[in-house]
Amino acid sequence: MSREAFANVLKTLRGQKKLSQEELAFRANVHRTYVSQLERGLKSPTLDTLSLICEVLEIRVSDLLRLVEEEADARKTRR
Amino acid sequence: MSREAFANVLKTLRGQKKLSQEELAFRANVHRTYVSQLERGLKSPTLDTLSLICEVLEIRVSDLLRLVEEEADARKTRR
Repeated sequence: MSREAFANVLKTLRGQKKLSQEELAFRANVHRTYVSQLERGLKSPTLDTLSLICEVLEIRVSDLLRLVEEEADARKTRR
Repeated sequence: MSREAFANVLKTLRGQKKLSQEELAFRANVHRTYVSQLERGLKSPTLDTLSLICEVLEIRVSDLLRLVEEEADARKTRR
């Protein structure tokens, strides 16, 4: 699973909820720099952490990852 | 996302592929004790590691996690 695609989907969903990185971090109970690291592809989240983030974003983990896979597939096709 | 439900789905999919914990670990390039820890709910995998495991199991990450969510929902209903 592409970290770049994950980063893009996370940024998009956070934007749709009109949350800053800090607000998302606070509500998901993760460190404030962690969301930034995820959105730059520097970290790979555990399922535990991803679940917390998905609760705030009001999306199922499987649905978020489906979006990531679709984003990654689209990138391959565009190349 | 329930670690218990994840553990059960992983065990089931591994069994369907007729792989031992050691074989799955070897093919996915993770430590041999790691699969055992996942199947006992002692660890939460990163997306990077889960992707490696899903490649061996020939399933998309989102599809595996959909199964986990369905398993968790079914457990709630049974209670």
